[in-house]
Order: sequence, then structure tokens, then C-alpha cells
Amino acid sequence: MMKRTLSAALVFGSLSFAASASEAVVVSKAITEAEVTAAQQAWCAALVDISATHDRDGQEAAKALAGDVIDAAYGYQMGVVLFKPTLTVVPQTFRPTREGALAYFVGGDPAFPNDTGFALKGWTDCSIANNAVFITGDSATTMGNVSITAKDGSVTTVDKTWQFVKDDAGALRIVLHHSSLPYTAQ
Amino acid sequence: MMKRTLSAALVFGSLSFAASASEAVVVSKAITEAEVTAAQQAWCAALVDISATHDRDGQEAAKALAGDVIDAAYGYQMGVVLFKPTLTVVPQTFRPTREGALAYFVGGDPAFPNDTGFALKGWTDCSIANNAVFITGDSATTMGNVSITAKDGSVTTVDKTWQFVKDDAGALRIVLHHSSLPYTAQ
Amino acid sequence: MMKRTLSAALVFGSLSFAASASEAVVVSKAITEAEVTAAQQAWCAALVDISATHDRDGQEAAKALAGDVIDAAYGYQMGVVLFKPTLTVVPQTFRPTREGALAYFVGGDPAFPNDTGFALKGWTDCSIANNAVFITGDSATTMGNVSITAKDGSVTTVDKTWQFVKDDAGALRIVLHHSSLPYTAQ
Amino acid sequence: MMKRTLSAALVFGSLSFAASASEAVVVSKAITEAEVTAAQQAWCAALVDISATHDRDGQEAAKALAGDVIDAAYGYQMGVVLFKPTLTVVPQTFRPTREGALAYFVGGDPAFPNDTGFALKGWTDCSIANNAVFITGDSATTMGNVSITAKDGSVTTVDKTWQFVKDDAGALRIVLHHSSLPYTAQ
Repeated sequence: MMKRTLSAALVFGSLSFAASASEAVVVSKAITEAEVTAAQQAWCAALVDISATHDRDGQEAAKALAGDVIDAAYGYQMGVVLFKPTLTVVPQTFRPTREGALAYFVGGDPAFPNDTGFALKGWTDCSIANNAVFITGDSATTMGNVSITAKDGSVTTVDKTWQFVKDDAGALRIVLHHSSLPYTAQ
Repeated sequence: MMKRTLSAALVFGSLSFAASASEAVVVSKAITEAEVTAAQQAWCAALVDISATHDRDGQEAAKALAGDVIDAAYGYQMGVVLFKPTLTVVPQTFRPTREGALAYFVGGDPAFPNDTGFALKGWTDCSIANNAVFITGDSATTMGNVSITAKDGSVTTVDKTWQFVKDDAGALRIVLHHSSLPYTAQ
Repeated sequence: MMKRTLSAALVFGSLSFAASASEAVVVSKAITEAEVTAAQQAWCAALVDISATHDRDGQEAAKALAGDVIDAAYGYQMGVVLFKPTLTVVPQTFRPTREGALAYFVGGDPAFPNDTGFALKGWTDCSIANNAVFITGDSATTMGNVSITAKDGSVTTVDKTWQFVKDDAGALRIVLHHSSLPYTAQ
Repeated sequence: MMKRTLSAALVFGSLSFAASASEAVVVSKAITEAEVTAAQQAWCAALVDISATHDRDGQEAAKALAGDVIDAAYGYQMGVVLFKPTLTVVPQTFRPTREGALAYFVGGDPAFPNDTGFALKGWTDCSIANNAVFITGDSATTMGNVSITAKDGSVTTVDKTWQFVKDDAGALRIVLHHSSLPYTAQ
């Protein structure tokens, strides 16, 4: 984010600050709430898009799209992502590698035999209701509910935590993703 | 963290850097892995301590201790904590306030009628196995398993995410805590 | 900075995001350009205020005010401030301690015999023209000119760099301050 | 920076933390003092290298090297660098663009007519004596003296401030550089 601002005359206490003809270049790597909201919505849009691509063009096309989404929206190139998907089980509960994330979303990887492709299940809508957002400056974390709608209209709501950091190009990337089904007394 | 270092003679490429008699003061607000590990272990120790206090001195003593732990180890004074405890249910799944955290740990608050006091259940041990840690600089996030042992020796393992930030006094504080039972196919 | 926001219906691509009745708490420790500008102007206002207090109430009053300004606007309690004032000389060029900063601003400290009290020299105005601002997220740095006006109307312009960090209370504090007279060919 | 650590048995208070067979991946974007020292020394080495290249291979070779150094060690691709070189004058005191930095170091640019090429002046040694270092987490600032030696053995010492941030590839980049000659009473 880069913009030019023109200094203006300001009054602070009893002082007057003279207008300046010079322009200050302002570069900020701080993360804004609007950027966080946009990144969350992009995740929802991508999930629905992968489902639609699967229905229309098949598993290979969905897999290619999911790979692109992971490369654009997650931070695996930074070394690791802290990823606990909703439906994974021991001993592959956590997915710190890109390979593990891709297997979770589209299945078909013999190295992850329990994965059936979460993103292929015909999701038609996805919405987010944040409980709280904490922006440390160079990272932002969110916690709340994500609700996804299946073809039959049924809605599944999960408890979800995300952490985003801004890369050199100014894009937010997910470096942490913890999703879990709501607790139910047994 | 503040220390004094004495510059030493260094060789870089073909250059020699002269030793300096001056001392540079170094102040770092960056979070280290050792600080993260210590903060996690302090959480475990506090959980077992609250249980032991409850057994020995009763609910009021346990509640007082839990309040002290929350004030020292969480970041509610920063405005909010993103807290999804293991066993909470709708519509009180998330506990963004200190009051909600205290009710979860020790129960007895009519405003949170489903809370029975998670920290009072006689936990005798607590251990942590991180899957991954991501330090952004001014914050650190961890994801992995936390296993807690009951009096009968049974062990419960949860999937847990924490985020820590360093306060002005140099102490790590939890600003995000997402805990969930492992997924089991139904 | 803490605010409550009400999630609204949003359209992202072909998706509709349902409006949510829940409110998300948003806490941000990121530094904004407006906060930086305000902190700079506060520094200017304080300089003029110390000069006016000196003229009106004497050196002791000016010293007390300067101490308050240092405690409120600088970050000495974090362990160190990287401070190179405009007019200091070897071997006391840098002022990493509060004592050294106070001596520079109001003089009268035998431990800093060359200091005559920079803030006591009757400054009547102070204005800032930033060349550039860089916000990393949890810190902000500025570089540009600061021009100060003496009683006789003469203006002195210096090259100035500041770094600000946000403390736990949300206030910006100066942790770096490098001021120098413009270079002139000799 | 990425490493693998093996959790070990730990004792915290009266608790024992079981050894874990799992390995936690740790990724840290926090800046260390060692990284700062290395980046400073690289700057010194580059200055001497450009001088030597100029003497040996001429201005064009020195200019090519200086361009490579700027691209590798400064952060112009992030949008701006806050750069106040030692010897620049109004109205080109500040050099927020790569073009202005290159002109300062090697001269020969008609757009910067006062620049004679600071890095071409036969510097044979360069050493750094930090007064203080402040690491915010994702950025680090240093203040102190840099002393450079000319062919005749004479040494010039300047007051210098740097700010470094870590890019996506893990390299420190200078985003702020304020250099000034020591003040001398006139």
C-alpha cells in the first residue's frame, strides 16, 4: 500500500503547523481490518469455486484450481502453515505442508488415505461471522464461525481461527488455520 | 530483554572490522522460541495448580487463583482475547471477555450456566507437543496437541492453537486460544 | 484502538455473504499514518510549550515539564532510546538514557557539561515536512525536515528521523530520534 | 529461518513434561541481533568493494556493482527508502528513490548534479560501533558511529541510523538510513 499525501495546515493546541508544498511518500505494511475481511471472503469464494469447478470440469480441474488457491492464499512458501482442518484424524491431524493441504481439499492422494476431498462436496455458499479480530500490526488473527451450505440447502457451521500475514507483494497469506466442529456433549 | 554486548573484532570477506571499546545496548521485543515454550509450560503448570488448589482449598481459592492466572497470562486488558475453549457451546462458544474465561475455568457463574469448571476436574499432569510454531516477530502462534491427565490416569488430548504477544513488561500474553476435541467420524 | 463493527451483507464475486447479527470486536495494535502525524505534532507542541514555560516560569518549571514530556512521549522505560540530538558532541553524542535526554532539553546537569538547554531557547513555532513515512506494522519511521522558529523570526531547519512504537496503552512512543543540521560544503 | 527441534523432557515446577517423539517445525520472521550485525558489516564490505572496483575497473563497473548492492541490501522495491545520505544538500537532501541512491553512491547522473560519487572515493576500510540497537520484532533499528578509512589513512566518522526489515526470502533490507557529520560548534 503506497500513497502520496499532501501536508495540510493543522492546528494542534495553540500552534499552527504550516502547510507544506512537499509530498510525503507513505508506505505501510500494517494490516487493516478491511484487508482481513477481504481475505476471509476470498477464502469462502475459493471454496465454492472449487466445488463448482469439480461439478463442471471434474477432479483434475478442481485439483489444479485448489493448488492455485493454496499457492495464492496460504503461506507454505514461508516454511510452514499451522493448519488443522475440520475433519482430519490422527496421525495426520495437522497439515504443515502444501501436499497435506491439497490432499485435504481435493483428496486422491494415496499418502493421505483418509482424505476424500473437503472442497469437492458441492458447497454452494459460504459466509463468515467473526467473533473477534486481533491485529498485532504485521499479522491479524480472526476467530468466529464459518457456515457453508450444501446443495440440499443444509448448513454446516464450524468454529474457525485464521492468522494472516502480509507478504512482500502486499497480499495477505494464511499462516494459521484451525477449524473444528462445535462441541456437543456426549 | 535487554543486554549489553561488547563488539568484537570480526572478519567479513577480506575486511577486518576493528574491535570497539564501546558497548551497545540491545533491546529486543522480538519473541523467541524459548519464550514461547516457557509460556506454554506455564499454562500447563497453572492448570494443574488450579486443580490442586481446588482439591486442597476449595472452589473460592481455585477461583481466586484462576483469576490471577488469567490476569497474568492472557491479554484481556488489551481489549479482547480470541478464546474458543474445548467444551463451550452455542451461544457462548467464544469467550472474548475475562468474565467468560473465568466462568469456563472455575464455573459457578449464573451468566454462564453450562460451565462446570474445566480447571477443577482434578488434572494431575499436562504436556504439550507442538506441531508447528510461527513467530512473526511481535507475535508467536503455536499449533499442536495438549494432553492432560486425570486422577484415574486417563489422558485427554486436544488440538490447540495459541497466539502470544509480548507486553510492555516483556511478558508473553495469550491473545488467541482455540481448543477442540479431535474429530471422530460419526 | 477498539471498536465494534456490525457485519453487513457483502457481495464477493458471484457469492453473497449473509448479514450477521453478531458483532465482532476488533482490536488493532497497528500504527496508522494519522497516529504518526499526531505524535509528531505533539513533539512540536511540547518543544514550544517548554520554551514558553521557561520564559514565563523559569528553568525549574521548564525542567519539570520536559521530564513529563520525555516520560510520556519517549520510550526510555522500554530499556533504551536511540537518540542523537542535533547539537551534541563526542563523547556524549548519543543519549540512550532519560538523564541524557533531559540534560539536552533543559541543561543544568553537571554530568553533561556541554548542554545548554535546547528547548529553552525561546522557540515560538515548529512545523514538520515529512519526506517519507514507513510503517512496518508495529512501528513507524519518519524522515524529513523539522523547522523551528526563534523569537526574532529566524527559522532553523534540521533533517530528522523518528521511530515510534505503540505501547500497551495505545500511545505512540519515540524509540529513535536522529536530528542533524543540513550538510554544507566546507 | 527454519529449523526442526525435538521436544525434550522438561521439568517445570513440580510438573514433568513428557518427551515427545514429534518434531515441531519452527519458523521465525523475528530479527536477531546477529542478523543485524551481519547486515551492517555487509554494508561496510560493499562500500569498500565499490571503491576497489572503481579503482580497478572504472566507473561503469562500480556503477553496476552499486546497483546490485542497492537492489540486494535496500528496500526500494517495497515502495520507498527513508534515505538521508551524509553529504546531500537541498533540494535533493532525501533520496526516496533507487535512482537517487545510485546517483549518491557513484555520481554521473545529470539529474543529481551535486553528486560526485561517495562510494568512489577510495575507501579502504569501514567499521561500525553501535551505540544502541532496538529490535521491535519485525524491524530493527541501530544508531551509532560508522568510521571509514581513506587511502591516505585518514578516518572519517559519521553518526548513522539504520532500520532493517526482513523480506519474504529472509534477507534484511535497509528501509531507513540517516547519516550525518558530527556537529561542531561554529
